Amino acid sequence: MKFFINDAHHVVDEGLEGLLTDPSLTKLDNFPEVRVILRKEIDKNKVSIISGGGSGHEPAHAGFVGKGMLTAAVCGDIFASPSVDAVLSAIVATTGEKGCLLIIKNYTGDRLNFGLAAEQAREMGYKVETVIVGDDIALGLDVQQRGLAGTLFVHKTAGYLAEEGKDLEEVTKAAKKVATQTYSIGLSLVEGQKFQNTEESRLSQSEAELGLGIHGEPGVETIAMDSAEVLMKKAIDKLKEYLPSEEKEYALLLNNLGSVTPIEMSILLYEFQKSDLAKKVRLVVGPAHLMTSLNMNGFSISILELDEEIKTALTAPAAPFAWFIREFGEISEVESPKLIETMPFKPSKEEKTEKALLAITEKLIGLEKELNAIDEKVGDGDAGSTFAAGSQKLKEVHDKLPFANPSELLITIGRILARETGGSSGVLLSIMFTRAGNAYKEEAHLGKALDAGLQKMKEFGGASEGQRTMIDAFQPAFTALANGESLEEAAKKAREGADKTREITNTDFGRSSYLSEKSLKGIPDPGAEAVARVFEVLVNL
Amino acid sequence: MKFFINDAHHVVDEGLEGLLTDPSLTKLDNFPEVRVILRKEIDKNKVSIISGGGSGHEPAHAGFVGKGMLTAAVCGDIFASPSVDAVLSAIVATTGEKGCLLIIKNYTGDRLNFGLAAEQAREMGYKVETVIVGDDIALGLDVQQRGLAGTLFVHKTAGYLAEEGKDLEEVTKAAKKVATQTYSIGLSLVEGQKFQNTEESRLSQSEAELGLGIHGEPGVETIAMDSAEVLMKKAIDKLKEYLPSEEKEYALLLNNLGSVTPIEMSILLYEFQKSDLAKKVRLVVGPAHLMTSLNMNGFSISILELDEEIKTALTAPAAPFAWFIREFGEISEVESPKLIETMPFKPSKEEKTEKALLAITEKLIGLEKELNAIDEKVGDGDAGSTFAAGSQKLKEVHDKLPFANPSELLITIGRILARETGGSSGVLLSIMFTRAGNAYKEEAHLGKALDAGLQKMKEFGGASEGQRTMIDAFQPAFTALANGESLEEAAKKAREGADKTREITNTDFGRSSYLSEKSLKGIPDPGAEAVARVFEVLVNL
Repeated sequence: MKFFINDAHHVVDEGLEGLLTDPSLTKLDNFPEVRVILRKEIDKNKVSIISGGGSGHEPAHAGFVGKGMLTAAVCGDIFASPSVDAVLSAIVATTGEKGCLLIIKNYTGDRLNFGLAAEQAREMGYKVETVIVGDDIALGLDVQQRGLAGTLFVHKTAGYLAEEGKDLEEVTKAAKKVATQTYSIGLSLVEGQKFQNTEESRLSQSEAELGLGIHGEPGVETIAMDSAEVLMKKAIDKLKEYLPSEEKEYALLLNNLGSVTPIEMSILLYEFQKSDLAKKVRLVVGPAHLMTSLNMNGFSISILELDEEIKTALTAPAAPFAWFIREFGEISEVESPKLIETMPFKPSKEEKTEKALLAITEKLIGLEKELNAIDEKVGDGDAGSTFAAGSQKLKEVHDKLPFANPSELLITIGRILARETGGSSGVLLSIMFTRAGNAYKEEAHLGKALDAGLQKMKEFGGASEGQRTMIDAFQPAFTALANGESLEEAAKKAREGADKTREITNTDFGRSSYLSEKSLKGIPDPGAEAVARVFEVLVNL
Repeated sequence: MKFFINDAHHVVDEGLEGLLTDPSLTKLDNFPEVRVILRKEIDKNKVSIISGGGSGHEPAHAGFVGKGMLTAAVCGDIFASPSVDAVLSAIVATTGEKGCLLIIKNYTGDRLNFGLAAEQAREMGYKVETVIVGDDIALGLDVQQRGLAGTLFVHKTAGYLAEEGKDLEEVTKAAKKVATQTYSIGLSLVEGQKFQNTEESRLSQSEAELGLGIHGEPGVETIAMDSAEVLMKKAIDKLKEYLPSEEKEYALLLNNLGSVTPIEMSILLYEFQKSDLAKKVRLVVGPAHLMTSLNMNGFSISILELDEEIKTALTAPAAPFAWFIREFGEISEVESPKLIETMPFKPSKEEKTEKALLAITEKLIGLEKELNAIDEKVGDGDAGSTFAAGSQKLKEVHDKLPFANPSELLITIGRILARETGGSSGVLLSIMFTRAGNAYKEEAHLGKALDAGLQKMKEFGGASEGQRTMIDAFQPAFTALANGESLEEAAKKAREGADKTREITNTDFGRSSYLSEKSLKGIPDPGAEAVARVFEVLVNL
């Protein structure tokens, strides 16, 4: 496995330094011996909210330092608790008269180190409270529950109340309430890999695991690999065993445990919204990286029972970008607009134009095999079929076309080509005719209108003259017409342009850009050749 | 490779449905035939901002629909442009008098389908402008530049100006300016894997690639795999070839192309900030998933030349959570607080206590081997050494201890144990003594103080009586002392408690929780045994 790191031993320090390019954050100057990330501006008249723990869970915890959430985060090594001294430094650096709340995930190391730091700080005269979060229901409620991503609900609630100037007692009470009312479960396909030693997964291609911790602890159950639908249902079913039986409103937190792509996370949210539980969910945090486990290919869901106090706290603005919450609702839709009909214009007759169109379509239908053969040598062999298909459709509908109105006719041809002709050529020709039709409305000059259409085709297609495309025939011919030259002159220019493509053996554009000089030499571009042939039809009418 | 999907063919539809649980978003009702995601509330008195393209780039583009950014996103299949009809539907559904701007990444399919839809919409009477974004500098400036994540700068600027009520001309002008002033480059270790067919990477363990597209196109250069520092430098050096020579201020966008973990992305940002270029960067978007390429293990950086108009537009609030921007600055630090000294109290004499302490330390130092031997059978074999180490330090410093003040003495013992005694036991005993010292200040009763300390140890350690820990000896002894019973009575209770641990063969806590009944039967817990021995010393003084 390849990683974007320098040295596995400096991953935590360097990752935190990257975060510190945020000018609202700073660190204590005994970093990295002690890794305390704190707000640059601290109002010591407010309760300080401190959390932390092992690293490898980014953006937790340092990514949640900021106004409205944590005052400071204390970061240990990968999956290892920070020292008592580090926690104590964070307390002393941020805590004023109003005191400080430590939010501790329920792991022995964190409990002990944060707990002892709290005792030492109290002994120094600081008011310190602690809340231990054990939101994981994987191991049941009887034994030690681990702290998972649901801990972030506690951070946000406590952070909001502290920002509001509430006292330590009130902040602590709310934090404990949120901790008690949060239920989480994780599900993974592949466990996270430590940067220094990448190992075989303990899970086979046909296995997943349910009820895992965020430090590589195996899941409580190995389950069969299955669809997103089945896997999300298993996680929800497990969670539902522990949710209160009364009717409640909930917030959901959908956490990316590491390497799940955003589109997969959205699919998981889609599967969640199919559940009964989703009907009770009013707010959602994520899907996002919130509390990861290195690059674990897994997710966790956390459910929090809401009340008005919690709702207000969760939805209040907070500085950390890693936190975002939105309403969760049913999927809706609106009526789609009626699209334009292909042929909305009244048919009209103009004999000469109709005769020309029919002659052109006959010609292009007849040229199908020849043009395909040319394209076989320099492209993908379907140029003739493309022109023939569009021509066939125009021939079929010719008695419904608005021949008497050049603008309407050009637009209609554009629409028919867009629907009936495959590939880029069809869309390109459609762009040209559609623009030409609109341009003709502005100035009733066919040559200028076609040239305007061609410019639009070049703009969107990105090709210009000399790159072995139909532009090589179109451009000189349309320039002639736009300048008031005769049709014969235009046809001559188209032929010259098409013939010139036989000598263009070096192009970085379009169908022939991957071919060698030898294979192109002497062969015309089939699009340019088709254009020249069409002009020859017109002059011989 | 395992994915959280149902059917590879429905990945795009289901992913978008997950996003649609956001009640501020909706879709056209001909979804998924046409995939148009749009704001539920559209003010048709403002310019409509539409983007889109192939999927597989989540959160782009639908994740950027919302007030202040896109009005609608048109989503194709994975890496495939949406149809003309889909784009036209989005235009017609969202566009009023003020017109609409299409933001198009420079790929042939997108250019053609969006371009033709624009023409068709114009023909229907809509005011439509287009801006084609080609921010990728990998292929140089002479050939067709691809649209990469820098396109998001265009979305944000156009979205802001539209929200401000600016007219189509002004919005388009600014969008084109931003598109021209944005420079991007990508670097990858492993290309993205399509969900239906996972393949071997074209890159070996020793290779990376620079200058790749977001649709699996190979990088312009295969480079050697290296540290984050070297790789970021290579990307920056390439980018710098194309940046203007004048002094400019820039915004940076650091994009996670798929499966890079947040901590690695932070390391990349750390490496970026070391560069000369970083000194000119004032704002940063990310690091985050902004415009991904499935699960590509790679990143891209985009640099935008700033001016006041662009700065205002980029930093204005916008609804989509996928967008966030912050100031970019130098890494700072603040002075760390002086931590408490281990022994801040004035030494004082109290003969009886000093004698007791020395007797206890002698005993525990003498018991090292015996307790280790017990621990070999039921734990990791170091219990005796842990107690001995703490005792040794206390013995060394005994003439500096505040024996005359029980509170100070208990606190000092707590501090010494935290620093000198390894493992959980040291921290646990430190918590107990520290709390006991503080409790003694509140009520000068040693038994009650010790019991309060023990309760704190239980709270943080998570164990209770009957789980084969030192608590089994401490608790009955301290309860006796707290109730005013004699030291002899307490010692008897400690011994009974320690002896009882010989019969506890089923525990789910601590050092012995992984051992079988047979291996525990008859062996005392070494911690409880140590406690009983200490009490025996005290009664025999």
